[in-house]
Amino acid sequence: MDAEIIGVGSELLLGQISNTDAQYISQKLSQLGINVFYHTVVGDNKNRLKEALEIASRRADLIFTTGGLGPTMDDLTKETIADFLGLNMFLHEESIEAIKGYFAKRGRTMSQNNNKQACFPEGAKIMPNNHGTAPGAIVENKGKVFIILPGPPGELQPMFEDYVIPYLERKSKEQITSRVLKVYGMGESVMEEKIKDLIINQSNPTIAPLAGSSELTIRITAKTARGEDPYKLIQPLEEKVRQRLGDLVYGVDDDTLESVVLRLLVESKKTIATAESCTGGLIAKRITSIPGASQAFIEGVVSYSNQSKIERLGVSEATLAKYGAVSPETAEEMVRGILETTGADLGAAVTGIAGPGGGTANKPVGLVYIGIGDKEGHFTVNSYNFLGGRKKVQEMAASMALDSIRRRLLTLET
Amino acid sequence: MDAEIIGVGSELLLGQISNTDAQYISQKLSQLGINVFYHTVVGDNKNRLKEALEIASRRADLIFTTGGLGPTMDDLTKETIADFLGLNMFLHEESIEAIKGYFAKRGRTMSQNNNKQACFPEGAKIMPNNHGTAPGAIVENKGKVFIILPGPPGELQPMFEDYVIPYLERKSKEQITSRVLKVYGMGESVMEEKIKDLIINQSNPTIAPLAGSSELTIRITAKTARGEDPYKLIQPLEEKVRQRLGDLVYGVDDDTLESVVLRLLVESKKTIATAESCTGGLIAKRITSIPGASQAFIEGVVSYSNQSKIERLGVSEATLAKYGAVSPETAEEMVRGILETTGADLGAAVTGIAGPGGGTANKPVGLVYIGIGDKEGHFTVNSYNFLGGRKKVQEMAASMALDSIRRRLLTLET
Repeated sequence: MDAEIIGVGSELLLGQISNTDAQYISQKLSQLGINVFYHTVVGDNKNRLKEALEIASRRADLIFTTGGLGPTMDDLTKETIADFLGLNMFLHEESIEAIKGYFAKRGRTMSQNNNKQACFPEGAKIMPNNHGTAPGAIVENKGKVFIILPGPPGELQPMFEDYVIPYLERKSKEQITSRVLKVYGMGESVMEEKIKDLIINQSNPTIAPLAGSSELTIRITAKTARGEDPYKLIQPLEEKVRQRLGDLVYGVDDDTLESVVLRLLVESKKTIATAESCTGGLIAKRITSIPGASQAFIEGVVSYSNQSKIERLGVSEATLAKYGAVSPETAEEMVRGILETTGADLGAAVTGIAGPGGGTANKPVGLVYIGIGDKEGHFTVNSYNFLGGRKKVQEMAASMALDSIRRRLLTLET
Repeated sequence: MDAEIIGVGSELLLGQISNTDAQYISQKLSQLGINVFYHTVVGDNKNRLKEALEIASRRADLIFTTGGLGPTMDDLTKETIADFLGLNMFLHEESIEAIKGYFAKRGRTMSQNNNKQACFPEGAKIMPNNHGTAPGAIVENKGKVFIILPGPPGELQPMFEDYVIPYLERKSKEQITSRVLKVYGMGESVMEEKIKDLIINQSNPTIAPLAGSSELTIRITAKTARGEDPYKLIQPLEEKVRQRLGDLVYGVDDDTLESVVLRLLVESKKTIATAESCTGGLIAKRITSIPGASQAFIEGVVSYSNQSKIERLGVSEATLAKYGAVSPETAEEMVRGILETTGADLGAAVTGIAGPGGGTANKPVGLVYIGIGDKEGHFTVNSYNFLGGRKKVQEMAASMALDSIRRRLLTLET
């Protein structure tokens, strides 16, 4: 069963919002084994929407529309679908009551134009909207299925979970399951060289590398009959990839460097503290964005000024004077300082030049020193030259620091 | 001139990423007065991409493609466009050198696959990629223009600014200019009430409110002939809006709460330090993400543990025992502590329950205390109940803290 998703709304074509509905629906459909071959976005324009519907019904069996269900005149998705299919519109009484109820709950009364939201093409199955005023609908017509959904993600997603998925599961026989391997520390083309033969010889499961901003992912996707265990197909290929890439594979699926670091810390019952200069708190922020961070994260110091490096972390004025704030010596004293002042098991320190200003010939923008230390007294400081704007340098430095923490934790564990 | 944007990449159809490139390009084109009537997304599939190109060339003069310029085998945008237009591919020597240089800078050597990235359809104007390996291209053919761009936003956006906009400006006669007012601290419907009449009576300039995750924007857009000063049209309407909303308007265009806070700090020659618990460094990270933060930001302490609150900030054990870490008393002692230990002019402290765990009946998830203090000895602590998941609560708390700092700075200035 092939699907196409049509996003309706001029705000999408003006770039006021991104088409996250298409992303959400696509994710869900791929899990259901339904192919999505096209996304289309059109504005609030009857003729262009009609043309999009014509094109979509030529190339897909299952056509989703998102948006254009509001009470205003420029909301015309349902009317246009009815027109396209040659159907009349009818007023759905239960929906009127539901909309009235929605307003009543909020101490407001329904305005006349909300009546429009209760009108649907003949023969439509109505999907109640428990998070807004616009109900959705499913219209089966001449072998095609039109699934009409509201635009706001907060309304679309629960409706999709509660009504669309059960409807689709009854229709589809096979399922697609993906396993994503998260890779950090190598370039895309280098990685592809290492798994080239696996990519060339792929069938089922398929294997697809994808380059992100500062990390890579490899998606292994298996097509199986519903009920069959997809991991029987996925596991052997995953093993091969892991043999090629070793511990460059830091996690799977929704893992992030910070979630893996926190998991390793909690598993090994170790605590961590961070001392950040050029990353300005980004490392602490990323670790503490993970639920349960308080089990392992004691403290972060964003020692942006020299004064702070001296007073909070005990970096010696001599070191700062002789080597400067951006130096391996300062990075090491920052780690030692954060370990001593917090008593954490593990410490990480970052000092560098994020730019755009502050670079010199010997210390260019992007030069970053990352220090990792532990209670047992092992200290390492590495230097990096990250290229890109300020935010990119900060992000790459934070990711590298998190990966360095991960690697230290792996060695501590063995 | 009508445009269509074709996003190429199976990762879009699988929902792995959202089509933010289409959003970015649409924003820029609307500012240039170029209509975008359709977005299309296709996978890494030659035939379907070709079909999308056929449909797009029927309904648009200006066709953008994003993605599919990588070194891997499934990257086939340029090849498919050449095929569609009946053009041969040629190897662009300068691009080979540029790609070699890109790798050299990073101490890596170019892999054979990357040669592919230097091949283009005959007659293409090449756009260098200063942030990645894939150059872009502009192909003019039979009255249509194909603008071929890389997928990663970090590569696409600078290329668009540096090469595409100058190219398009030469083509379009009228210009659309927008002024965005950034609003923080009120609900969308409340704001719309205040400017309802302006919205109803809009013509040129137009006025459009838009609700973001934790802030609102109002976009004032004027259509003028090239060379004419658009702000003659924009300013009077902007003044009216500002009269209605007062200091809820915190900035314009690319301003963010953090950039405005930093600007106010630098202008008033004041320094700041932060003490964060539940926001975990997010406030420090947001301030230090702005170039020049070192002029005003002295230090941030992420005092996640009680121990850290006591040792770094001098919060009294008695206070923690009596009122708990999440209390106005602790918030105030955190501000006093960060001010005393850093000597900063201004201090901000946040303590709360970000969730998902840790909530109780009297202290539910989302309860956050924000303390602001200054050297002159003015301390205020406010409490908030933010709704949403962990990240949302952290983001809303950080934004509220930044806005509180902004408001304090405004009072200090007067």
